[in-house]
Amino acid sequence: MDFEVLVSNAALHGASGAIIYTDPEEFAPDGPLNTFPKSWWLPDTGIQRGSAMGRQGPGDPLTPGFPSVDGIYRNPLNKSGLPTIPAMAMSYGDAKEILRRMKGPKAPDDWQGGLDLSYHVGPGFKDKRLSLHMEVNSKLEIRTIYNVIGKIRGTEEPDRYVLMGNHRDAWVFGAADPISGTAILMELSRGLGELLKSGWRPRRTIMLCSWDAEEIFVVGSAEYVEENAQILQDRAVAYLNMDVAVNGNFSINVDANPLLQNLAISLTKEILDPTVQNSQRSMYDVMVERDITKHVNGSPFCDNLSFGSDYVAFYHFIGVSCADWSYIFGGRGTHGIRRSYPVYHSSHDTFYWIKTFIDPEFKTHLAVGKFAAIFLLELSESPLLPFNTTTYANLLHSKARELERNWHFKRRNINSTALFNAVNNFAKVSHEFEANKVTINTKDLRLVNDQMMQLEKAFIQTVEPNNPRQLRHVIYGPDLLNLYGGKYFPRLNHAVEIAIKSGDWQQVEKEISLLTFSINSAANVLKPI
Amino acid sequence: MDFEVLVSNAALHGASGAIIYTDPEEFAPDGPLNTFPKSWWLPDTGIQRGSAMGRQGPGDPLTPGFPSVDGIYRNPLNKSGLPTIPAMAMSYGDAKEILRRMKGPKAPDDWQGGLDLSYHVGPGFKDKRLSLHMEVNSKLEIRTIYNVIGKIRGTEEPDRYVLMGNHRDAWVFGAADPISGTAILMELSRGLGELLKSGWRPRRTIMLCSWDAEEIFVVGSAEYVEENAQILQDRAVAYLNMDVAVNGNFSINVDANPLLQNLAISLTKEILDPTVQNSQRSMYDVMVERDITKHVNGSPFCDNLSFGSDYVAFYHFIGVSCADWSYIFGGRGTHGIRRSYPVYHSSHDTFYWIKTFIDPEFKTHLAVGKFAAIFLLELSESPLLPFNTTTYANLLHSKARELERNWHFKRRNINSTALFNAVNNFAKVSHEFEANKVTINTKDLRLVNDQMMQLEKAFIQTVEPNNPRQLRHVIYGPDLLNLYGGKYFPRLNHAVEIAIKSGDWQQVEKEISLLTFSINSAANVLKPI
Repeated sequence: MDFEVLVSNAALHGASGAIIYTDPEEFAPDGPLNTFPKSWWLPDTGIQRGSAMGRQGPGDPLTPGFPSVDGIYRNPLNKSGLPTIPAMAMSYGDAKEILRRMKGPKAPDDWQGGLDLSYHVGPGFKDKRLSLHMEVNSKLEIRTIYNVIGKIRGTEEPDRYVLMGNHRDAWVFGAADPISGTAILMELSRGLGELLKSGWRPRRTIMLCSWDAEEIFVVGSAEYVEENAQILQDRAVAYLNMDVAVNGNFSINVDANPLLQNLAISLTKEILDPTVQNSQRSMYDVMVERDITKHVNGSPFCDNLSFGSDYVAFYHFIGVSCADWSYIFGGRGTHGIRRSYPVYHSSHDTFYWIKTFIDPEFKTHLAVGKFAAIFLLELSESPLLPFNTTTYANLLHSKARELERNWHFKRRNINSTALFNAVNNFAKVSHEFEANKVTINTKDLRLVNDQMMQLEKAFIQTVEPNNPRQLRHVIYGPDLLNLYGGKYFPRLNHAVEIAIKSGDWQQVEKEISLLTFSINSAANVLKPI
Repeated sequence: MDFEVLVSNAALHGASGAIIYTDPEEFAPDGPLNTFPKSWWLPDTGIQRGSAMGRQGPGDPLTPGFPSVDGIYRNPLNKSGLPTIPAMAMSYGDAKEILRRMKGPKAPDDWQGGLDLSYHVGPGFKDKRLSLHMEVNSKLEIRTIYNVIGKIRGTEEPDRYVLMGNHRDAWVFGAADPISGTAILMELSRGLGELLKSGWRPRRTIMLCSWDAEEIFVVGSAEYVEENAQILQDRAVAYLNMDVAVNGNFSINVDANPLLQNLAISLTKEILDPTVQNSQRSMYDVMVERDITKHVNGSPFCDNLSFGSDYVAFYHFIGVSCADWSYIFGGRGTHGIRRSYPVYHSSHDTFYWIKTFIDPEFKTHLAVGKFAAIFLLELSESPLLPFNTTTYANLLHSKARELERNWHFKRRNINSTALFNAVNNFAKVSHEFEANKVTINTKDLRLVNDQMMQLEKAFIQTVEPNNPRQLRHVIYGPDLLNLYGGKYFPRLNHAVEIAIKSGDWQQVEKEISLLTFSINSAANVLKPI
């Protein structure tokens, strides 16, 4: 699924080009006849596109960390980290013609796919006279992109920004990705317009953002964040993202940073689920019932934010609290619940597909729109920000224990006492903070809100070099083998992986210190002033 | 004067040790008989100590960028950047015995000093039987240091901090350095205590800081800033520093970051000068009259903050506005006005020396104490912060022009248009900001104050690696050949120096972009919200 990793690895292993196709095993499991336009599954002519950028970090690869504006210096192409070989996407109908002719050892069982043939890994074809001619007509060029930002100035706290965004570019028609989100953002914008006409003004400044060039690794939003990093890190309360707002009729799915996870889950209780006829069951109820991977004993949880959409730079570069949601396709795939949908990034992601198979009356779009609206207004209107630090405390605790279970620092004589002390200290400070918050007086609102707003920023580390440099969050970061995923304590885990091979654990000790320091800094932010 | 640079350079040129002495040419210009205890000049037994740390950046060299606290990882000594050869300080009386025996070419004219002999550069002695045995008994060890911080919580803006600090460690007795400042800080603390007893509370939180280990390159304050970076960069309005508060009876001297320069100069008008008997002339009047290097046509100016005292980490690491002042020794030395004093860092910096030669009735201490008090209270009490952005606009303009004059970017086909546009844009935005500030209403005070407070932080760059990593200010930074001094646009100037040798101007173009970006970010902070 991750184009960039596939292409980079192919290049590393000496390939002169890469062809990527999506296997019917996951995208057309009912067989070649029961596909689009008869069903929602991907037909054998369908091509899932993707970006081969990404490993060098979000945004323009020629201006990492800096806004790609007129007159700015651009790194030379050969230092950009872009893949060095051409790549193209193909349908499984076409790929089949190549695959069935390939020689070499039989592929391992878990590489065998859904095509009616035996998968071999090559190199080369059984018929020696055959060779593969790859012609790629993509152009490498610098193009102008446009972000469109609408702003409603807050009356009480004009210098506190609540942002919501969605991207505008699509691989082809993009009815789900991104237009399901774009439609909601437009409707929400219209609704806020009506409120403005009636004399309403928000407490905090609201910004609605239509991003360009998301599909080539969040260039629009990342460049915006880079250009405005200084004011956003001082003023942004949260960034709410919708990308594929609706791509199925299974369940709402919300990802958020730990501070917003409680709010995100609780808001799903406020909206009636659109896929249950004549019922009074909320999105929350339906999520608990259907999405068994997202709750523990009936208590749903959010995942943290990965690297798949326009929140990347907000969260991982400058530490702004973020959430992202989608009404997902669902159903069980080979690898668990399917969160994506079969025609993802293909030319079949159309109005017809959405209307015929997913949301004929656009009730799901409406319900997700309502969810978006209350999320935005909770953040822009609540005098006390509806953030919760307890989730962070619990998360740090469980993830730190996981570290010890995975890597056995004690057994290796690596001293991690300071880290565990920091985690316990954070829990203690957070506990007091939450207790005091309940009785806060109006005069101290701003002060306490600032503490919550700034907490996440304590995890952005700017002293040691980061790689990629735009991914600076020490608690949650990229899994460079799967940019749709992520992992906790990315720097520390990476250092351990290297130490296990090299036997030199010095950098691990340094990373434990760095993490300890960040967690203590975060606790300092929450301490009584 | 700069021990660290001397020692590092000696090591680079193959020396196995370095002996440093202070030549009587500047420290005892009236000859060997007219010195301490007969006069304020350094006797031939006086030794000026100094730190050979520094080039690796402020703070503990084993924990660059991180707080040196219990349990933290420390870099190995061989990666610390500390000098690799032993060094010691010597009196000119002892040094004379070595110098007069040295052979080799005669030293250049501007290396000839005030001793009654001809200076030769060596290596070796005229008498071949002689050799120099250097025994250094310094221990290299990790020691615990203590900062003492007193805090008075502000009533209106408790989460806005105005800090004042002075160091407590001295090379020997340290009557001027640092005790002239310590005495004032203690007295100021007592005075604030009296005010508190009367029921007064400050508008903003006041913090009084007594730093340890300043003399080994500002370790106490730098570690404090590193440990509290997250909250200080969000909450610190300004840091005011006194080191050697009184070391002479020539004139007040104030250094400050551009935002505080106007305030600093104007406050010198508020205090009667202590060295003029029965007169109503202010410190300002006396400074204009005596310190001809610090005014242009009667308009005094401040220098920016160098690297000589505890403001370093506040200003250069996290972008907090700072000021530092001293009633200076003055008088004209070989290299212009003497800002330091003859017994600096020697065992003769004593109460006797101060009382006998400098400030017999401690009137200067009192006057500087008053200056400190009104500076602190202006910042803690003024509803609208008394910062001025015009000075920054003018400074950027003149320094950018200087860049062009020095390096001829145009002639070299280096495009610096974006930089000049950014400088002009900053001036325009600053002009509007200052105009609007006058009519600000109470509701918007906090907002406008935050803009002024955060402006300087836009110049702290954390995307590209810095060297040393604790010095991150793109507008003003270290002159690594003289840490008592500094230079504008340190990264860009450094890149130009390298490019002139290598012929490769790519990094210069990148640095111009980086600077352009920072200046635009700073302008964004000031734009109407």
